[in-house]
Amino acid sequence: MLIGLVGIGKIAVDQHVPAIADSRDWDLAATVSRHGQVDGVEAFADFDHMLETRPDIRVVSLCLPPVPRFDYAAKAIRAGRHVMLEKPPGATLSECHTLEAMAREHRVSLYATWHSRQADKVAPAKAWLAGKTLKKLTVTWKEDVRQWHPGQDWCFEPGGLGVFDPGINALSIVTEILPDPLHLTAAELHFPQNRDTPIAASCRFYHPGGADVSANLDWLEPGPPTWNIEAVTDQGTLLLENGGGKMTIDGRHDEGVAGLGGEYPRLYAQMAELVVQGGIDMDLAPMRHVADAFTLGKRVTVAPFEW
Amino acid sequence: MLIGLVGIGKIAVDQHVPAIADSRDWDLAATVSRHGQVDGVEAFADFDHMLETRPDIRVVSLCLPPVPRFDYAAKAIRAGRHVMLEKPPGATLSECHTLEAMAREHRVSLYATWHSRQADKVAPAKAWLAGKTLKKLTVTWKEDVRQWHPGQDWCFEPGGLGVFDPGINALSIVTEILPDPLHLTAAELHFPQNRDTPIAASCRFYHPGGADVSANLDWLEPGPPTWNIEAVTDQGTLLLENGGGKMTIDGRHDEGVAGLGGEYPRLYAQMAELVVQGGIDMDLAPMRHVADAFTLGKRVTVAPFEW
Repeated sequence: MLIGLVGIGKIAVDQHVPAIADSRDWDLAATVSRHGQVDGVEAFADFDHMLETRPDIRVVSLCLPPVPRFDYAAKAIRAGRHVMLEKPPGATLSECHTLEAMAREHRVSLYATWHSRQADKVAPAKAWLAGKTLKKLTVTWKEDVRQWHPGQDWCFEPGGLGVFDPGINALSIVTEILPDPLHLTAAELHFPQNRDTPIAASCRFYHPGGADVSANLDWLEPGPPTWNIEAVTDQGTLLLENGGGKMTIDGRHDEGVAGLGGEYPRLYAQMAELVVQGGIDMDLAPMRHVADAFTLGKRVTVAPFEW
Repeated sequence: MLIGLVGIGKIAVDQHVPAIADSRDWDLAATVSRHGQVDGVEAFADFDHMLETRPDIRVVSLCLPPVPRFDYAAKAIRAGRHVMLEKPPGATLSECHTLEAMAREHRVSLYATWHSRQADKVAPAKAWLAGKTLKKLTVTWKEDVRQWHPGQDWCFEPGGLGVFDPGINALSIVTEILPDPLHLTAAELHFPQNRDTPIAASCRFYHPGGADVSANLDWLEPGPPTWNIEAVTDQGTLLLENGGGKMTIDGRHDEGVAGLGGEYPRLYAQMAELVVQGGIDMDLAPMRHVADAFTLGKRVTVAPFEW
């Protein structure tokens, strides 16, 4: 199938372009970007122009930042195109609900992707947890914002989500691997005195079986990142490391080899399936938990942050 | 039908008890509360005990504060009871989604009530706006928290919503009367230096027809409250005042008389219909807009607030 890629920034070049190039399902037929382009691919600066002149491109993948993304997604859906959205699927929950209603009305596929859910060991972790009784689940998601988003002030502007930008990846995994729904009961958000989003957060969740579920997010961790989820059950302890890339059960490393080649190839394979089936996958659970944390969280002012 | 009322505080005594007493649909069969009770009605201190000993009571109405409400609602649904929820329907969006899924699974009715939607002039305003082109909509929701919630510190505790506690009433009306879905694009939230929730907020919204939609909320307005929504259209201007109780079109007062007697009687009539039809009404749009404002809003610290 032909696909158009909108927003040719770092994530597009690093992940989307190679994933599309390696896929048997997809051919990159056009890009839309004010600045970037891809060698050998028709480049548009204007999205409307692409939608008008390339009616053969039935699917578009949007890698723009969340705030402008709604307008592009709405235009594409109204033009009868299937749409794939980078995470998070929008700047607000309300616009995501609107997009889903529009996709149903226009009978197109819509996919809110959560790339971390496609990490190698997420499906095995989900399978291992099924049928076991959860006692405790602890998310530890710590990285150095200076290393991962150097100088990117948008992270700290309203809507930038702050430490929940990486933290939502953890929540996307947790909501995938646990069979039971959680909801936040308390959170503490650390806002640098000179910034509009939190740089650290701790969250506690209600679990229907009474398990002790918590998340500890920190954007000021020096050195290598820690992206871990530990689940203690009645039948042993599962540890997911490397953002879902490594799994150990009671200290034994799971050596199983995953199919396909990584998170983004799996997202594009999933999108191909959705388009063929006429499906919509607009699971907003990770984003709802983040909104709940902002709504319910206690705000603590901490030292100013400078790059 | 027999109904049990859980949480006998000010809102129950002022609104729920009289609405049930005046209704032909309902008989108040039991109350559950640690402190309050209603003369001549069986009083329980323990909810489990009521559910066990009164299987004839098929419907419960929960007027507890949002934070403890989830546990009661989940117990009631698991016990096969139909459930009516005061606004807001929970402390988090996630728990509301969980409750809706549980209600579908247990085939019971669930009603997230928004009492302001039942104000006398909301349905006439919706009817008048239908088919007209909106140019501008302005919410002005200003009241004195010292008059309306004297000494109630929970308003300013995490999860208490602050000025969005009254503001969500305005949003419940706006999302009812407008045919098109909105989403927030920017907000400014004023947090008193010594409090955890905002005491004032201004919000801007995207409207699919390009109308200029905004809300201005203030909890420090002395004197009588202003609870107004003004909608400028291509065919005149609608002004809703008194929280939806009064309507003027281009300055002419709408004299139409509403049926039934007020917001809560209409909520209970609606609940009776839902139970008969086996329906679920769990519209979370007002709460999503509030969560979006907390997520996207710029935080401004203002003077400390003392009662």
